Amino acid sequence: MVAVEVPPIEVRGVELPRGETAIIVVDMQNDFVRREGKLYVPSAESTVKPIIELLDRARSLGVRVIYTQDWHMRNDPEFRIWGEHALAGTWGAEIIEELRPLPDDFIVRKLRYDAFFGTSLDYFLRVNGLRNLVIVGTVANICVLHTAGSAALNWYNVVLPMDGVSALTDFDLYSTLRQVSFLYKGTITRTTDIKFT
Amino acid sequence: MVAVEVPPIEVRGVELPRGETAIIVVDMQNDFVRREGKLYVPSAESTVKPIIELLDRARSLGVRVIYTQDWHMRNDPEFRIWGEHALAGTWGAEIIEELRPLPDDFIVRKLRYDAFFGTSLDYFLRVNGLRNLVIVGTVANICVLHTAGSAALNWYNVVLPMDGVSALTDFDLYSTLRQVSFLYKGTITRTTDIKFT
Amino acid sequence: MVAVEVPPIEVRGVELPRGETAIIVVDMQNDFVRREGKLYVPSAESTVKPIIELLDRARSLGVRVIYTQDWHMRNDPEFRIWGEHALAGTWGAEIIEELRPLPDDFIVRKLRYDAFFGTSLDYFLRVNGLRNLVIVGTVANICVLHTAGSAALNWYNVVLPMDGVSALTDFDLYSTLRQVSFLYKGTITRTTDIKFT
Amino acid sequence: MVAVEVPPIEVRGVELPRGETAIIVVDMQNDFVRREGKLYVPSAESTVKPIIELLDRARSLGVRVIYTQDWHMRNDPEFRIWGEHALAGTWGAEIIEELRPLPDDFIVRKLRYDAFFGTSLDYFLRVNGLRNLVIVGTVANICVLHTAGSAALNWYNVVLPMDGVSALTDFDLYSTLRQVSFLYKGTITRTTDIKFT
Repeated sequence: MVAVEVPPIEVRGVELPRGETAIIVVDMQNDFVRREGKLYVPSAESTVKPIIELLDRARSLGVRVIYTQDWHMRNDPEFRIWGEHALAGTWGAEIIEELRPLPDDFIVRKLRYDAFFGTSLDYFLRVNGLRNLVIVGTVANICVLHTAGSAALNWYNVVLPMDGVSALTDFDLYSTLRQVSFLYKGTITRTTDIKFT
Repeated sequence: MVAVEVPPIEVRGVELPRGETAIIVVDMQNDFVRREGKLYVPSAESTVKPIIELLDRARSLGVRVIYTQDWHMRNDPEFRIWGEHALAGTWGAEIIEELRPLPDDFIVRKLRYDAFFGTSLDYFLRVNGLRNLVIVGTVANICVLHTAGSAALNWYNVVLPMDGVSALTDFDLYSTLRQVSFLYKGTITRTTDIKFT
Repeated sequence: MVAVEVPPIEVRGVELPRGETAIIVVDMQNDFVRREGKLYVPSAESTVKPIIELLDRARSLGVRVIYTQDWHMRNDPEFRIWGEHALAGTWGAEIIEELRPLPDDFIVRKLRYDAFFGTSLDYFLRVNGLRNLVIVGTVANICVLHTAGSAALNWYNVVLPMDGVSALTDFDLYSTLRQVSFLYKGTITRTTDIKFT
Repeated sequence: MVAVEVPPIEVRGVELPRGETAIIVVDMQNDFVRREGKLYVPSAESTVKPIIELLDRARSLGVRVIYTQDWHMRNDPEFRIWGEHALAGTWGAEIIEELRPLPDDFIVRKLRYDAFFGTSLDYFLRVNGLRNLVIVGTVANICVLHTAGSAALNWYNVVLPMDGVSALTDFDLYSTLRQVSFLYKGTITRTTDIKFT
C-alpha cells in the first residue's frame, strides 16, 4: 500500500459578482446520493445541507442555478464501466428531493462525466454572461473535476467549496482540489466563505 | 503536511493491433524537458529513452506516431498561470532533438492542456481508424491527463506506460494513474509491456 | 428582380442498410407547421404525409428515428432575428400531433439551426453505429441544411428526399438541394425511392 | 433547365470598431486562384485587388487579419469528392503571393470547409475580443459560407463584401448572399463600403 504527500492547497474566501456567477450542482441524483442508489457515494449525504444553504443564499441574490443530470440511454456504453445507472426516466436519475430544481434553473442532461461534453452548457453560460462557476456535487474526481476542467480550458473562473463536493476516497478528493487549484488556478473554499457581491 | 493512501492501481501488459493504434507523444519540448527550459520538469529526462525505444519499435511495425506541441501566441492568457512558455517559433517550443518527428508523423499544435481542444486530433484519429492511444510525455497530470480524458470520453482506448510519463510530484503522477485506470478503464503499463499485434 | 439558373441536380433512388441508418425529422413543431404557429412555413404541411409514410416503413424495419426540436429559453438571443418561437414548454414547441415521437425515438433539443451544435447527436450516432442520415423536415435552407452540413463534415452519408423538406421560397429549396448534392455529395431523392436493405 | 427568382438582398455600408474586428481571408491559395491550380475558381482573380486594398486599409488601422488555408493530408477522405488539392506542403496549398500573410497575422489550417471545424479559430477570436468578422475569399458557397455559418451560430457579427468573394456559378454566389443576410442577419456590402471606426 502506497501513501503520498499531498502538495499544499490554499483554502480561502472569495467574492463573486452575482450577475456573472452561476452555481453548478453536479449529479446530485438518487443513484449517487441515496443508499439505495446504484452508485452510492456515502460522503455525498453530508454535502446536501451546505449545498441547500448555498443555493438559498444564491437564489435570494439572483445568482443563477444550473443542475447537471447524468442521463443514460439503455445500453449506454458507459454501463460497461459502471454498470447501469442514471437510466433516463428512472427514480435513480432524478435529482434528490431536497435539491429539486426550481422552474428558472437550467438543467443540463449529460451523457458523460463532463457537463460541457455534448451539451449546450457553454452556449448558455456565454449567452447569459456567466463567467464565474461555483461547482458543487458529486463525484469530486469524476463529473465535478471533468466539468471544472472544461470550464477552465474555456477560461471560466472555477470556485470549488470543499464542503459541497464528495468523493469515494480521500485521495480522490485531494486530487480534485490539487487539479483545480494548481492547473486551473481555481479557488478552493468553503460554501460559507463565498460572498456574492 | 497531509499524506494520503493511494487506491490500488493495476499494472499489466497489453496487446494492441498495430493498424488501429497510435502513440501520442505529449509536449516533449525544450521548455519542459531541458534544464534551460522555462517550465522544466526534472523527471522528464528519464522518460526520453523509454519513449525512443517505444517509438522505434512502433514505427518499425507501422504504428502511427502523433506529437502534441504546446504552441502559444504572444500574450496568451495561459501565461497568467504559468508565465511565458512554448512561445510559437522559439527554441523552447521545439520538440527535443532526440524525439524529432519524422515526415509521416502527425503534429498537433495545441493552445491548452488538452490535445483534443481546438485541434483536428479527433478528426485525424477517426479518419484513420485509430482506436487505441498509447500516451507518453509530460506533464502527467496536466497535458497527458487532459488528453487521456478527452480520448476516453470519446471512447478511445487509453494506454499509459508509467515509465513514459513524468510529473512534478509523486502525488500528481499517482493521481494521473488513478484517473486513467479508475475513470477511463485505461491500461496502466510499462513501455516494454506493450505488444503490437 | 433577379432570376438565376439553377445548376443541374441529380435525383435518384438509394438503398440504405437498415441497421446503420437513421431518419432525422427536423423541427416539425407547431410553430413551424401550423397556420397558427409563430413562424409558419406554408409548404411544410404537404410534407407531413410523405414523412409519416417514410417513418412507418422505417420503423417497421427497425430503422432508428431521431427528432430535432427547436427549444428556446426566454430572452433567447435568436429571438432578435426571428421573434419569439419554439419557447420551451409551449404548444408551439411541441412536435405536431401526427408525427408524435414514440418512446424509443431519440429527441434532440437544440438551441440553434444545427442539430449537432451543443447537443449529443454526434455522440448518439457514433455510439449506435449510424452512418446514413435521411433528413426530412423544415426549414430546408435553415435547420435542415445546417444539420446536413455538420453531418457531412463529420462524414455521415446524407440523404435528402425532396418531398420531405419544405422552404419559404423556391430559391431556398433549390439552394438546399444544390449544397447537399454538390458540396456534401449527398443523395437527392424522394421518400418513396429510399429502400432499406 | 430551371431558373428561379432570387429573394431581395439588401446591400449597405457598415461601420466596424477596429479593435473588435478581424478580416478572414478564406482559402486564397494557388490551387483555387491560379489557372494552374487543381480546383481553379475563375472569378477568384477579380477579388484579389479589392482584398489587397481592404487588407491594406485594415492593417493600417490595427484591424487583425486571419487567413484560412485548406491543408490536406495524403489520402484525405475529401479527395474522394474533389480530387487531390491543397496538399500539405505543396505549391497549390500556398497562399497566393499577392496576399502573403504578414508575421502578426493568424493562420488557420483547416481540414474541411468550415474554418471553425477542428481548429482554434473560435478560441483565438474569443481570447482577443474579436466580435465582427469580415469574410472574403473563395469559394463563396463552400468555405466562405460554412465559416460564416459557424461564426453566426456563435453570435459573431458577419460582414460579407460581395466584391471580395468568388463562386463557380451565379446561383452559388446568390445563395451565399441569401443565407448570410436572411439566416445570419449578416451584412452584405462592398469592400469600399466598410468603414473601421
